Amino acid sequence: MGDFHTRRAVLTAGAIAAGSAILRPGDAAARELGAGRSEYGRRSKYERSERFVTPGGLPGTGSSRTPLQDLYGIITPSSLHFERHHSGVPTIDPTQHELLLHGLVERPLRFSMAELRRFPSVSRLHFIECGGNASREQDGNPGSTVQLSHGLLSCSEWSGVPLSVLLREAGLKTSARWILAEGADAARHSRSIPLEKALDDVLVAYGQNGEAVRPEQGYPLRLVVPGCEGNVNVKWLHRLQVLDQPAMSRDEAASYTDLMPSGKAQRFTFEMETNSVITRPSGGQHLGGRGFFEITGLAWSGLGKIVRVEVSVDGGGAWRDAELQAPVCSKALTRFRYPWRWAGEETILQSRSTDEMGCVQPTRAMLIAARGMRKGPDGFDHYHGIKPWRVNRDGSVVCLPA
Amino acid sequence: MGDFHTRRAVLTAGAIAAGSAILRPGDAAARELGAGRSEYGRRSKYERSERFVTPGGLPGTGSSRTPLQDLYGIITPSSLHFERHHSGVPTIDPTQHELLLHGLVERPLRFSMAELRRFPSVSRLHFIECGGNASREQDGNPGSTVQLSHGLLSCSEWSGVPLSVLLREAGLKTSARWILAEGADAARHSRSIPLEKALDDVLVAYGQNGEAVRPEQGYPLRLVVPGCEGNVNVKWLHRLQVLDQPAMSRDEAASYTDLMPSGKAQRFTFEMETNSVITRPSGGQHLGGRGFFEITGLAWSGLGKIVRVEVSVDGGGAWRDAELQAPVCSKALTRFRYPWRWAGEETILQSRSTDEMGCVQPTRAMLIAARGMRKGPDGFDHYHGIKPWRVNRDGSVVCLPA
Repeated sequence: MGDFHTRRAVLTAGAIAAGSAILRPGDAAARELGAGRSEYGRRSKYERSERFVTPGGLPGTGSSRTPLQDLYGIITPSSLHFERHHSGVPTIDPTQHELLLHGLVERPLRFSMAELRRFPSVSRLHFIECGGNASREQDGNPGSTVQLSHGLLSCSEWSGVPLSVLLREAGLKTSARWILAEGADAARHSRSIPLEKALDDVLVAYGQNGEAVRPEQGYPLRLVVPGCEGNVNVKWLHRLQVLDQPAMSRDEAASYTDLMPSGKAQRFTFEMETNSVITRPSGGQHLGGRGFFEITGLAWSGLGKIVRVEVSVDGGGAWRDAELQAPVCSKALTRFRYPWRWAGEETILQSRSTDEMGCVQPTRAMLIAARGMRKGPDGFDHYHGIKPWRVNRDGSVVCLPA
Repeated sequence: MGDFHTRRAVLTAGAIAAGSAILRPGDAAARELGAGRSEYGRRSKYERSERFVTPGGLPGTGSSRTPLQDLYGIITPSSLHFERHHSGVPTIDPTQHELLLHGLVERPLRFSMAELRRFPSVSRLHFIECGGNASREQDGNPGSTVQLSHGLLSCSEWSGVPLSVLLREAGLKTSARWILAEGADAARHSRSIPLEKALDDVLVAYGQNGEAVRPEQGYPLRLVVPGCEGNVNVKWLHRLQVLDQPAMSRDEAASYTDLMPSGKAQRFTFEMETNSVITRPSGGQHLGGRGFFEITGLAWSGLGKIVRVEVSVDGGGAWRDAELQAPVCSKALTRFRYPWRWAGEETILQSRSTDEMGCVQPTRAMLIAARGMRKGPDGFDHYHGIKPWRVNRDGSVVCLPA
């Protein structure tokens, strides 16, 4: 990072347009006594950043999106974590909630929330991304802002019991190969995961960003399946069934499969591949004049840690390394930053990530060549192409149509 | 960590009392359509954890404490970050807020919030702890719960501009030695910090846990001085003055000094030294029967990273290494965990931290021997002694009186 800091110093020393020279200090701040303390704090009334809510075709369906353009660092405030529901957010009394673990086990077990909290626990930072995030990029109808294009993406510190610990308690039969996880929402959303993954890093999570999992994220219990598409991370978790094959539930048979140009569909493509997006400057924003800007954004991979993010500020001619903010955690959002001086030209900003498996974020053209074009509102899942933003001469930043 | 995992496996395999055997699965969960999506989420109505509010002698003074016993991981939810005010929480319109940087600089500058956001930024996890946290431990009047004893302690992901960048913009005069930071609260709370620290890792922070700094934490701008006592982290920051000596403001002259047995006072003892506390099981909790429990808590040091936490479950006879949850960040809370089997005996649980400077958390007796005893409600600042919790035969957990 030595070179980077040298470059940053050159760019910033005495050269940033921000900050106004002043002649003498004033003191305009109020002198009134302020508000008192509170039991559970709220954000300032001046803060208006919010989730963009898209209603679905039926009550309780639809989604809401994280306002990535407004966020700092890598933690998504729990109040702004994206939502995607198929039958609404159930209201669950945690003293009545139980997790059933049954199927191909020696000892079927039922756990209350209090019992789960007695087990060994872990806390880890992980992103969750909807499999359909950015799906309209591929058919040339990208969202106009980064919230609309990539906002089905959030990152939290999740805490809970490793699923492997519970499976060990129950004792796996030798025929065990898959785990079905079912939620207590009205539709009983369920997905199957392979036993290898279940024994690796999956969490039965009761904590999110220090407190209880939020209702929209599965209160009181969510299966967190690090790196895997959002709806595998089953919310309102109330049942785990050990099977010898996948259950072929609705959301892994009728949908959440990837149709290939051959007409065959890939199933169980769990991992979200290496991806990145510039969040500032991004679509809908306006550069307030020439001079220094920090380009910043998020990179992530369902396969491990991000090891590199490159940024191009000239439409893909030159790519240079961005700085990665520590700590860089596996299967978590990674914040990147790149210093940029805008001279007023029209240009295109892009980022390209590489993960520790050596996977490099592809272009849109490469993805379409491999998987074909899917027209329509659903596009295709697992889109992770390089995302361009165009900066116009007037400082406006817009998404690029195909 | 190999030995640790082996021990954990032995303790847990088939041996945890939690989890009930079941004969056949039921499904008691509701089938009603749940609530819809929302723009800014809230926690479940069943969650009641809150800050314990202590009113001060005058309106706007006093504090509130983080409920450490209820928290998971290392992030403190912003709504539960502790508060300590001297004149209440001002309501500040960020479009009107400015930061003045003046004094011994070549170019006095004034920054709007929009201008500050154009500068290079960083995000880092840091704890903030009130200098007076746990002050009643030393005179033998500990709080009955970990919230009451140690709750003036929280940890957030802070985002903002390095103070060093702003100082470079303004240009330091050769006589510059100290920086006075002043808040826009009614009392204009202010503290001086040495230039070396200001040029090291101090942040002018506008972000907390992904969104804007909360009002009680200084919205829209807080000086984050990593590792240093809470009130040096000036909230509602609106003025920075470069000086050739400390300003000797009220809160560094009349208070926030450490009286020694000799009758002399230490001033500018900024760093919070290595410390730890078990948060579960802790005072006021009740073990629900013999068997396996996970002992967990938090360790921190204002001097750097935590490298070791030892736990004793027998009143200080044996000390064994706890597991540290990654990532371990400098001047941030570190979560530790230790597997424990309770056989029903009366015993004492304690933790002892070591930081990367080699500092080991002292006993209360060692601290009193070095600094004397201070009777009364204020105790002494910078208390960081080993904290014992007594487990009674009936499973109740209580603080230990002197």
